Amino acid sequence: LRKGFPEVIFCEGKTPYQVREIALAMHRKEVDVLGTRASREHFEAVKEVIDKAIYYEEARIISVKNTPLKKTKGVIGVVAAGTSDLPVAEEAAVTAELMGNTVKRFYDVGVAGLHRLLHKLDEIRKCRVLIAVAGMEGALPTVLGGLVSAPVIAVPTSVGYGANFRGLSALLAMLNSCASGVTVVNIDNGFGAAYAATLINRIGEEEK
Amino acid sequence: LRKGFPEVIFCEGKTPYQVREIALAMHRKEVDVLGTRASREHFEAVKEVIDKAIYYEEARIISVKNTPLKKTKGVIGVVAAGTSDLPVAEEAAVTAELMGNTVKRFYDVGVAGLHRLLHKLDEIRKCRVLIAVAGMEGALPTVLGGLVSAPVIAVPTSVGYGANFRGLSALLAMLNSCASGVTVVNIDNGFGAAYAATLINRIGEEEK
Amino acid sequence: LRKGFPEVIFCEGKTPYQVREIALAMHRKEVDVLGTRASREHFEAVKEVIDKAIYYEEARIISVKNTPLKKTKGVIGVVAAGTSDLPVAEEAAVTAELMGNTVKRFYDVGVAGLHRLLHKLDEIRKCRVLIAVAGMEGALPTVLGGLVSAPVIAVPTSVGYGANFRGLSALLAMLNSCASGVTVVNIDNGFGAAYAATLINRIGEEEK
Amino acid sequence: LRKGFPEVIFCEGKTPYQVREIALAMHRKEVDVLGTRASREHFEAVKEVIDKAIYYEEARIISVKNTPLKKTKGVIGVVAAGTSDLPVAEEAAVTAELMGNTVKRFYDVGVAGLHRLLHKLDEIRKCRVLIAVAGMEGALPTVLGGLVSAPVIAVPTSVGYGANFRGLSALLAMLNSCASGVTVVNIDNGFGAAYAATLINRIGEEEK
Amino acid sequence: LRKGFPEVIFCEGKTPYQVREIALAMHRKEVDVLGTRASREHFEAVKEVIDKAIYYEEARIISVKNTPLKKTKGVIGVVAAGTSDLPVAEEAAVTAELMGNTVKRFYDVGVAGLHRLLHKLDEIRKCRVLIAVAGMEGALPTVLGGLVSAPVIAVPTSVGYGANFRGLSALLAMLNSCASGVTVVNIDNGFGAAYAATLINRIGEEEK
Amino acid sequence: LRKGFPEVIFCEGKTPYQVREIALAMHRKEVDVLGTRASREHFEAVKEVIDKAIYYEEARIISVKNTPLKKTKGVIGVVAAGTSDLPVAEEAAVTAELMGNTVKRFYDVGVAGLHRLLHKLDEIRKCRVLIAVAGMEGALPTVLGGLVSAPVIAVPTSVGYGANFRGLSALLAMLNSCASGVTVVNIDNGFGAAYAATLINRIGEEEK
Amino acid sequence: LRKGFPEVIFCEGKTPYQVREIALAMHRKEVDVLGTRASREHFEAVKEVIDKAIYYEEARIISVKNTPLKKTKGVIGVVAAGTSDLPVAEEAAVTAELMGNTVKRFYDVGVAGLHRLLHKLDEIRKCRVLIAVAGMEGALPTVLGGLVSAPVIAVPTSVGYGANFRGLSALLAMLNSCASGVTVVNIDNGFGAAYAATLINRIGEEEK
Amino acid sequence: LRKGFPEVIFCEGKTPYQVREIALAMHRKEVDVLGTRASREHFEAVKEVIDKAIYYEEARIISVKNTPLKKTKGVIGVVAAGTSDLPVAEEAAVTAELMGNTVKRFYDVGVAGLHRLLHKLDEIRKCRVLIAVAGMEGALPTVLGGLVSAPVIAVPTSVGYGANFRGLSALLAMLNSCASGVTVVNIDNGFGAAYAATLINRIGEEEK
Ligand SMILES: Nc1ncnc2c1ncn2[C@@H]1O[C@H](COP(=O)(O)O)[C@@H](O)[C@H]1O
Ligand SMILES: Nc1ncnc2c1ncn2[C@@H]1O[C@H](COP(=O)(O)O)[C@@H](O)[C@H]1O
Ligand SMILES: Nc1ncnc2c1ncn2[C@@H]1O[C@H](COP(=O)(O)O)[C@@H](O)[C@H]1O
Ligand SMILES: Nc1ncnc2c1ncn2[C@@H]1O[C@H](COP(=O)(O)O)[C@@H](O)[C@H]1O
Ligand SMILES: [Mg+2]
Ligand SMILES: [Mg+2]
Ligand SMILES: [Mg+2]
Ligand SMILES: [Mg+2]
Ligand SMILES: [Mg+2]
Ligand SMILES: [Mg+2]
Ligand SMILES: [Mg+2]
Ligand SMILES: [Mg+2]
Repeated sequence: LRKGFPEVIFCEGKTPYQVREIALAMHRKEVDVLGTRASREHFEAVKEVIDKAIYYEEARIISVKNTPLKKTKGVIGVVAAGTSDLPVAEEAAVTAELMGNTVKRFYDVGVAGLHRLLHKLDEIRKCRVLIAVAGMEGALPTVLGGLVSAPVIAVPTSVGYGANFRGLSALLAMLNSCASGVTVVNIDNGFGAAYAATLINRIGEEEK
Repeated sequence: LRKGFPEVIFCEGKTPYQVREIALAMHRKEVDVLGTRASREHFEAVKEVIDKAIYYEEARIISVKNTPLKKTKGVIGVVAAGTSDLPVAEEAAVTAELMGNTVKRFYDVGVAGLHRLLHKLDEIRKCRVLIAVAGMEGALPTVLGGLVSAPVIAVPTSVGYGANFRGLSALLAMLNSCASGVTVVNIDNGFGAAYAATLINRIGEEEK
Repeated sequence: LRKGFPEVIFCEGKTPYQVREIALAMHRKEVDVLGTRASREHFEAVKEVIDKAIYYEEARIISVKNTPLKKTKGVIGVVAAGTSDLPVAEEAAVTAELMGNTVKRFYDVGVAGLHRLLHKLDEIRKCRVLIAVAGMEGALPTVLGGLVSAPVIAVPTSVGYGANFRGLSALLAMLNSCASGVTVVNIDNGFGAAYAATLINRIGEEEK
Repeated sequence: LRKGFPEVIFCEGKTPYQVREIALAMHRKEVDVLGTRASREHFEAVKEVIDKAIYYEEARIISVKNTPLKKTKGVIGVVAAGTSDLPVAEEAAVTAELMGNTVKRFYDVGVAGLHRLLHKLDEIRKCRVLIAVAGMEGALPTVLGGLVSAPVIAVPTSVGYGANFRGLSALLAMLNSCASGVTVVNIDNGFGAAYAATLINRIGEEEK
Repeated sequence: LRKGFPEVIFCEGKTPYQVREIALAMHRKEVDVLGTRASREHFEAVKEVIDKAIYYEEARIISVKNTPLKKTKGVIGVVAAGTSDLPVAEEAAVTAELMGNTVKRFYDVGVAGLHRLLHKLDEIRKCRVLIAVAGMEGALPTVLGGLVSAPVIAVPTSVGYGANFRGLSALLAMLNSCASGVTVVNIDNGFGAAYAATLINRIGEEEK
Repeated sequence: LRKGFPEVIFCEGKTPYQVREIALAMHRKEVDVLGTRASREHFEAVKEVIDKAIYYEEARIISVKNTPLKKTKGVIGVVAAGTSDLPVAEEAAVTAELMGNTVKRFYDVGVAGLHRLLHKLDEIRKCRVLIAVAGMEGALPTVLGGLVSAPVIAVPTSVGYGANFRGLSALLAMLNSCASGVTVVNIDNGFGAAYAATLINRIGEEEK
Repeated sequence: LRKGFPEVIFCEGKTPYQVREIALAMHRKEVDVLGTRASREHFEAVKEVIDKAIYYEEARIISVKNTPLKKTKGVIGVVAAGTSDLPVAEEAAVTAELMGNTVKRFYDVGVAGLHRLLHKLDEIRKCRVLIAVAGMEGALPTVLGGLVSAPVIAVPTSVGYGANFRGLSALLAMLNSCASGVTVVNIDNGFGAAYAATLINRIGEEEK
Repeated sequence: LRKGFPEVIFCEGKTPYQVREIALAMHRKEVDVLGTRASREHFEAVKEVIDKAIYYEEARIISVKNTPLKKTKGVIGVVAAGTSDLPVAEEAAVTAELMGNTVKRFYDVGVAGLHRLLHKLDEIRKCRVLIAVAGMEGALPTVLGGLVSAPVIAVPTSVGYGANFRGLSALLAMLNSCASGVTVVNIDNGFGAAYAATLINRIGEEEK
């Protein structure tokens, strides 16, 4: 249905063998293949049979590119606070790139150190869509939403402990954001955020 | 910050007197005023002092328009199943209209009667952004997301009883949607969905 | 009490040794034995002492058949979306078969790709009872329930992550199904769905 | 789709005026009309315009019968414990009757007074399908399921207080029933249980 | 035990008569009396028998002062976002004042409009203790905690709807604050925050 | 304070070394020592330094008896359904025995096979106190409570899966028991049930 | 089954008329009648037809005594903290008295004012069974359990707000009590605590 | 911003290599480094490159001191019950010491053995701030808060099982404490409690 989107494999819970077989079948149809939540073991199994496969370690993504990659003019900004949220932020950023978007990363701009966020604000405001990744108290999308006029897709992460309840605290905070223009995806769902951001970013491209 | 957006009053929990005073103060600044979750009592208090105030009964919205309304070329589609979800759907649709969007309503297209949804599909596919409103099992955004290539903003409603837990069932279903391109706002938050949809719809307008 | 039902062992949490001893004792009474949630280790321990034991890998079921298997005329359809739900779907399908039902599998018919489901609809409508297995947003039984007139037994699976809360999202969605004729069993309880479906399927047989 | 089923109105949350208008529109199509969760006010509004409308007080059901009622040979048994669960039990029983089933009521057979249940057992065992309604600890379907070979549809009720959490205790108990052949519907959903029971009961009729 | 603290009555759930009798008995011992969660009815009943009783409407507090009020040198700052949180903020501010603290209010400084907060920062930084009141996504204490070096007592409010779950979203956000130096009290517990802030503020006074 | 009670070590989460040192220190005071939730590794570490230590495998209990054991005349009955609940039932039974009670075990008397329970009823009714252990739907204490006049202490177990939520289903069912005379302890807390049962059983002994 | 126990009516949710009819039917059998959760309206309806009916206002109990009341030698102590918990404490105390127990009340002995509890300790220690009623943090049964050797039945109350979640905080605290000999009943279930305490108290009487 | 505070690394979920690199970078700036939730493996990696690094085993803390340590006159008291809570108590105590506070430990003073707590009371009352660490029923801060006039920071621990729900029972109990002057941090957050206590303790120092 949707042109230019890769076929996607959610690798978690699948054996390396299963992932390899699915990837190979897709690859033979000459479409792009994207494996998310992939361990190095998953990648190595795929690499054995598809030599051009690439692994993005931090993003835990396997990519097999079979179509030419063209970049959008509009930029998707991925904003995140600490190093702990980076795997999810990278899942979003790499997915968005592999789907043909120009992506800019703004990491280490958490709400507990506001000056770093304010310092980057001019650049952030140039993005057409924003993905805001945050764990624990999940305040980043709200603060960001109050500072920009682009739509903000909020990704709660399961980073935290105790009353975090595996991401519930950030999820609820984001759903209750007092800033307008914020929508939310599932906990740790960097992929889903990138997919929705791509659909939005394309609106700007297509209409030109 | 954001041009063309009205000043908003969340009326629930405020007295008619309080809403009237806030509305009047905004009105004097000659901006647009939008009151959500407004009862008829709220409206009547406002109407006393602002004659041009308009009440949208089903949407529970008070509007005072002080700036000219221009309509977007791109369409926001509001999709909903049953009559019970209509107040939330109307909150979304009226808010979007008052923010300058062209809006099309697709009501009575629930997933338990799939043919009605499929019947409207061609028209739905012409929308630039979709807002999908559903209570109970909250399946509509997922089914819709699998059929269209526009971004889908899902609004869970608190319609239901028992294990619905005031909208929790629909909220969780939407956050776990197996269809890509779906993002979610708070339970019953038609306003928030319309606001985000407006930001997205503008991308298409501005870029032209 | 119930004629033609095997004696059942829930293997999870039991040692291979424990399962073997229980199976052997049952086998000696010349009844059918059915071990669910069985690992290969469980099976191998049983196989050592009961040579005719069979292992259904994907369904994680051990079977020892001591009575003749006769098949029903009425068909139980097992409907599921993705590969992740297959272990639960297979637990239901194999259990139903071992209890003497004719079973038809409809896999890969998830709600995010509706055309595949609609394509199989004629065949699905010929079943006397349906078991619908789904994780994540759990929308399949609702969509199915709106398309068929057979009773639908919904099985939520724990497949998903984040706000899935180990199957809670699918469970709540199914309990709140806006389609009538849907009843629900515990998360991942393929066995229980097959058992109930068998009781229902027998009504048609016995009455003839 | 489904022949012989009435059109249904869920009255709770609708005004008497709304219910009357919907009922009238259906009535004009000469189909049967069934209003559930109906207050006396709802009924009186309907009665004004449809004289043949009947109100079942305890079941909170409005019925307008426009087609002849034929009764099944197979019996649906509705089993419940105390007086507090009767509104839900009656919603199930009256719905089932209005859908053409022969229904037998077994009330006051709670698990805390087991002898009363055992005393009725012979008669209960003659039913083709059973609906078991229970609040609080929700043990009735489990005890019943161990004593009969008919399929049991369990309806948790919201009767109770404190750690009952509006029916959650009974719902969880039923989903975790250690008796096989039990499936579950939403809290207080007597209507849904009757609908599913009707589909099952018909299997016996149709096959004859 | 604690000198200078009033005797406290939690009025919610008590009849005006009960509150009056308790207040009178305390008043006769010539101690200060503080009634929280008091309605105007509660106040009027007390006023009848204790003429010097004062009512703080927004804070819902009844005060009977029988000891001289001396003010601390150190300031307790009460920081809050919107008008909806003001009853809780005022409960904190008035309680703190009646316990002898110098209090400064910083209202309308929510995180979605960061510039207003930053604008007040110099003054906020002069406070010895801060009470931060916020509902919905509860981000204020985190943002504040990153900007000041005073201890911050966070008060979640039950303001919000849907996935707010009566204050749970703000409570969890605050417990998971990524800013250090933040401690939390119960939802809507302005009184408790003021009491703890008073104990802390006294450390500075006493040590001088 | 309480004469005749052993000193107790909760071994879970402690290293074998830690358990050994604590046990040894207690042993030297010549009191009885009871280690609960003890693995075989814990036991072996203790055995090395206290030769008379005994291990109850299924109950996961280490016992060092330093005082003479005298048995009560009154009997504590421990009632349980399946093999999965036996570790908790045995923790209760062995603890009660080591605290000087005469204990009778009634295992395999679950509510889904009522006749086995009824068959043992005469003997069960002779007990002075009953401990009822059950997982999943937790119906046993309710059924039992309706059949006996002794106080019943209900122990929910974490046995189950899915909507069992680690024992929550059984816990809630027991707290909502429609049978009177039932009190509840924590999930899997066989020890606590035995301790309370001992206090109750002693009333009968002491008063003689 | 159980001699000397009254027939019980749970009045909440029943109309005055319903309660009157049930009470009258019981009264005619010349047994004792006990109505719990009864409003004054319930009582007045009963009083009209049963002149000897008595109403315990704070306990919300209706009593009709048709058998002679004899008092136990052993004492049940009812221990509670503040005035807010008194309705539940009185439900327990009055129920226990009407079931023939000698009851002693120890109110205003909360854990935040420990000296009052310690002051009453000698008298508390003379009781054969204790019922400890507490809301909010629910610490009373734990503190009490550490000071006495009688069995303690803990009753959580729904008194509190915010993160109290209608009694959940106290319930969980009591189930997790670090003191041994504590068992728990449902939130606000003073009746159930009294019933269980009666069964225990009788052990001492009967054995004499 | 805050003078005298170390740079902090949350080690859990980071590899030894990552922790070493972050620690080294900080160390080179000649600031103090504090690693929390550090395993021995984390420490050994740091030790390899920073010889003066110290490991606090029970507290799971790595410390690199690069600035002189001066001790406060005011004392922070850390109060805890059993050995299971010691890791969290030690995280609090060691963090507070490394931040320059004089710290006194009061361990083994749980509420189930009240005399030990009362015995230490005089010494506890001399502290300027108290940190109360407790799991299970979480009653310690409440009992303590009623006995002292210092502010109490409550730390719930995840110690317990069953209805403890990983610390939820203690967390809710502390948030609902009936004693005033108690504020709460996240489950197991000894670090956060120490940080807040340091800010409070400094008030007394600075003002002198
Ligand atoms: N229906 C609504 N749902 C969620 N947020 C809303 C809604 N209506 C208004 N708001 C937000 O509430 C703010 C106004 O709140 P208040 O100042 O309390 O009237 C606006 O700025 C909006 O962002
Ligand atoms: N608004 C409040 N929130 C929480 N606790 C309060 C509040 N007001 C009073 N309290 C506490 O409630 C106690 C009085 O409760 P009561 O005896 O029921 O009136 C006081 O000692 C305070 O500790
Ligand atoms: N306050 C109460 N809390 C819990 N259960 C109660 C209470 N009062 C009565 N019951 C139980 O409710 C039953 C009567 O319920 P019902 O037949 O609905 O009036 C009695 O047998 C008691 O076991
Ligand atoms: N044990 C702890 N619990 C909660 N927060 C902590 C803990 N240790 C460190 N932190 C916070 O975590 C931050 C460091 O996180 P990170 O950058 O992921 O190492 C510090 O600034 C502290 O505010
Ligand atoms: Mg914004
Ligand atoms: Mg729907
Ligand atoms: Mg699905
Ligand atoms: Mg059965
Ligand atoms: Mg700070
Ligand atoms: Mg009983
Ligand atoms: Mg005790
Ligand atoms: Mg105190």
